Amino acid sequence: MILCDIGNTSVDLYQDGKRTKLRADDFDPFSITEEVYFISVNSRFNERVINCPNWHDLRAAVAWEKYYPTMGIDRVMVCEAVEEGVIVDAGSAITVDVMRSGVYEGGFISLGLRAAREAYGRLSPALDVSWNFEVDLAKMAKNTPNAVTAGFLAPLVAQIKSLGKPIYLSGGDAQILSRFFPDAVVDEELIFKGMKKLIEKGRVC
Amino acid sequence: MILCDIGNTSVDLYQDGKRTKLRADDFDPFSITEEVYFISVNSRFNERVINCPNWHDLRAAVAWEKYYPTMGIDRVMVCEAVEEGVIVDAGSAITVDVMRSGVYEGGFISLGLRAAREAYGRLSPALDVSWNFEVDLAKMAKNTPNAVTAGFLAPLVAQIKSLGKPIYLSGGDAQILSRFFPDAVVDEELIFKGMKKLIEKGRVC
Repeated sequence: MILCDIGNTSVDLYQDGKRTKLRADDFDPFSITEEVYFISVNSRFNERVINCPNWHDLRAAVAWEKYYPTMGIDRVMVCEAVEEGVIVDAGSAITVDVMRSGVYEGGFISLGLRAAREAYGRLSPALDVSWNFEVDLAKMAKNTPNAVTAGFLAPLVAQIKSLGKPIYLSGGDAQILSRFFPDAVVDEELIFKGMKKLIEKGRVC
Repeated sequence: MILCDIGNTSVDLYQDGKRTKLRADDFDPFSITEEVYFISVNSRFNERVINCPNWHDLRAAVAWEKYYPTMGIDRVMVCEAVEEGVIVDAGSAITVDVMRSGVYEGGFISLGLRAAREAYGRLSPALDVSWNFEVDLAKMAKNTPNAVTAGFLAPLVAQIKSLGKPIYLSGGDAQILSRFFPDAVVDEELIFKGMKKLIEKGRVC
């Protein structure tokens, strides 16, 4: 069994604990003959995969009444992985969601670190600075890199901490953010754990 | 006496409590014969104004040791206006600064509302939604407009409130933000009040 997370630019395959990342444009779903369980936010890929009988879309297995209809499928999967806690998925966006006793309580969407840095840069050349991830978020800033880094991170980190524990960090920027959450669990495979749990629930066709 | 705040796209003139906004590109500083005290972040304008003897740059009047060298001059001016409190200047960026007994304690820079909305829109068409400024920031969101609006505003508003009182709101988006700060003083002329105070201190040449 292969698990697969299809984004707009990349395909992330997971088999027996091993992860392989490929470019979405070059990827041919017919090249895999094993059973594949996938999630996808890539509409071009969805058209290609529709005739592959061994590819199973996990979207159909989600109990959507727990979530909301326009919620991203990747976000649903990291929530499925966690029974109790705050899930921070730090990718192109940073999604923050709360699960309590398996019930989805809601969440919010922040800009991802790269998107935020770029947005500051677009505002003014003076704000197009390297971020200082060593910044002390408890202190008021007195230079531009700290004012920008803390300006984005201090409110976000405080808000996440206010939601309670445990905190799970996933996604490409999980390691960078973990500096500000010393007690958090960093788990870059949370999305695949969610997919696996959903398959085990047996609603997959 | 005329006060003037020169941005990259507009010129904001203030005389006897009356404000006039003009386009920076068309504006000829020689067209004004009265004494003008100005701040400017517009380098093209600065070259044009250099030969106007009646135009006085307030940058030279700032006691920069109180602030930091790369701090925006507009930000310094709103701080000069306030002896005690938290100053939120919500324009293309949202700057947040703290003054205690006339001493600058530091601050941070957030994206402006428009810049943030655009940055979400660039991430994904699914996040290119109208913001809901009626959102209840105390509740976890369960739809995309609320998840995005609260994702940006809830952390920022909580962080500003954590800095103490009084809170002063200035800049083009002061009215929109005031909904979330019922006790704040909205003062769209804070920048001119700071300029006036600085002139009264008498360090202007």
